[in-house]
Amino acid sequence: MSRAGRGHDPVSSAPTPAATNEGIAEPLAVEELGSFHIGGREATLSGLDTRELRVTPAAPAIEIDPNGEFEVEQMYVQYVRLASPRARYPLLMWHGGGLSGVTWETTPDGRPGWMNLFLRYGHDVYVSDAVERGRASWARFPEIFATEPFFRSKQEAWEGFRIGPSWTGDPGERIPYPDSQFPVASFDRFAKQLVPRWATNDPCTQSAYDELVRHAGPCVILAHSQGAVFALRAAAAAPETVKAVVVLEPGGAPDPRHEDISAMRNTPVLCVWGDHVEDHEVWSDLRRSCERYWHAQSDQGGIADTIDLPEEGIRGNSHLIMMDRNSDLIAARVQQWLESRGFMK
Amino acid sequence: MSRAGRGHDPVSSAPTPAATNEGIAEPLAVEELGSFHIGGREATLSGLDTRELRVTPAAPAIEIDPNGEFEVEQMYVQYVRLASPRARYPLLMWHGGGLSGVTWETTPDGRPGWMNLFLRYGHDVYVSDAVERGRASWARFPEIFATEPFFRSKQEAWEGFRIGPSWTGDPGERIPYPDSQFPVASFDRFAKQLVPRWATNDPCTQSAYDELVRHAGPCVILAHSQGAVFALRAAAAAPETVKAVVVLEPGGAPDPRHEDISAMRNTPVLCVWGDHVEDHEVWSDLRRSCERYWHAQSDQGGIADTIDLPEEGIRGNSHLIMMDRNSDLIAARVQQWLESRGFMK
Repeated sequence: MSRAGRGHDPVSSAPTPAATNEGIAEPLAVEELGSFHIGGREATLSGLDTRELRVTPAAPAIEIDPNGEFEVEQMYVQYVRLASPRARYPLLMWHGGGLSGVTWETTPDGRPGWMNLFLRYGHDVYVSDAVERGRASWARFPEIFATEPFFRSKQEAWEGFRIGPSWTGDPGERIPYPDSQFPVASFDRFAKQLVPRWATNDPCTQSAYDELVRHAGPCVILAHSQGAVFALRAAAAAPETVKAVVVLEPGGAPDPRHEDISAMRNTPVLCVWGDHVEDHEVWSDLRRSCERYWHAQSDQGGIADTIDLPEEGIRGNSHLIMMDRNSDLIAARVQQWLESRGFMK
Repeated sequence: MSRAGRGHDPVSSAPTPAATNEGIAEPLAVEELGSFHIGGREATLSGLDTRELRVTPAAPAIEIDPNGEFEVEQMYVQYVRLASPRARYPLLMWHGGGLSGVTWETTPDGRPGWMNLFLRYGHDVYVSDAVERGRASWARFPEIFATEPFFRSKQEAWEGFRIGPSWTGDPGERIPYPDSQFPVASFDRFAKQLVPRWATNDPCTQSAYDELVRHAGPCVILAHSQGAVFALRAAAAAPETVKAVVVLEPGGAPDPRHEDISAMRNTPVLCVWGDHVEDHEVWSDLRRSCERYWHAQSDQGGIADTIDLPEEGIRGNSHLIMMDRNSDLIAARVQQWLESRGFMK
């Protein structure tokens, strides 16, 4: 590959249709902007030793008592309600693993994120931080969260999110895929979004998402990566409420050989895949397992659509489709699908 | 005190003037809504042992390698820019200790928070999560953050935030001040906002705030509690940029006997105090130390205003003024001050 591809944004190869920027210059008429926490429970810690903590070696010790009652396992939700939404239902935007709702905001290179784009398309939006992430807060471990958290390194993000095939640790030697759509010059800025995660919080996370769906009422879910599993399960648990599920680069899906998905028969699902899936063992395996769900949904007469970007000639999308340089284009494709399936007024 | 005060919202004693709700029913014309991370650095971890982690005892082990490169010590900023701001400068809203930018959003009992109110008053707003809090993310300790975090218990919040004089741990026996303005029936919902904090991250937090000020340009800072110290220091470091500082219930202030505050001579400062300060040893000490700063600012010819709510007959405000049942009224008072000091167009 050429040196030009290293550490710089290659010139965009996919033109952005004018339609995707429609209305971006017009002010957005916002009815209400707000937030809430949902889910969770009270936990009580007792019998733990107090500790002394010094801000500097010379400073007086502060005594820290870790005991008491705490709210834990809640999630955070920020919503923007439009004065005149054109979508039939609000759009619940669920992030992926090691990330937070920031996923949907301004892209790392400073363009409007999907939160903005879907507001512009006329959707009320609910952007959440799952249990343990971002503004949801997190709890002491191992007393409340059973295990210790883990932190995604930049190398893991670069390779695992399929920005490029390799990483030597030297900024000049981060090798992106030659056709990468990720704004690679802004990768470090993206890395500031990464948040620690736990491997053992899926049950309380699912429970908080389920409660969010009940609270929101009739809705469409848009989920990225790890969020896809939570979304498909939340939809199956509330098929009258969740009207459709769009997943970007799902990090998994319920296995229809072991999990009853018949409740999904009337819930259209759309899956969007980026590029270089087959170059990556973990992702090619994950895609095969997700496709089992899509086939089962189709076999039971449900709507199971897929946008395979490279198959349509759109090359180089990473796992972080909503941040890629052609993110407007992909948002427009998702919006077209929502329109075609009757989710706009 | 009467049983009626326990665990229930007492009837509001302070009428909310109609003026504070002016325009709340009108859609807000938003030019742009977005976010970014600012500050921080790259940290490298090496030589740490990998660990095995099991999601359930029967599950296959996941190998966790804690080594690598990470972005750390950044902060998160969400902004809302209006189509036609009436304020001269954007309002930077900085939260207090153990909290995040959620402080400024919807109140725990579901009313519009100060983020909304000041947008309605015509200010562009930047709501941040400081280093280590909320969407700013946090870093492994003790390798990157030097100490372990601590978690505020509900009892510490109830008593330390001056919602009530005592707490027995039983929800029926949470004793609020008889005149408490805090929406006590929503206290558990408030407790879901609490995030862990570190005692040893002040230098990188100040640095990120200073960078935010440089990025934002001419601005007014509104800071709560712990945020006040960062705000007063950021203003002294950039007196041409920070045009005014409003602090609610400051958790401290630079000591003018040891710190040069002459740069603040042309920067108006306003301080707002709630009730029951003198009933609480920590807070009465803190208030006296903050007043030293206010006196010094006044002595050097600067503008050093104070709104002492109980002195004006407004009783029962907690440390969490922006969430109290009369928060609209106090926001209106702050807005009047900004208008009177020439910060509106």
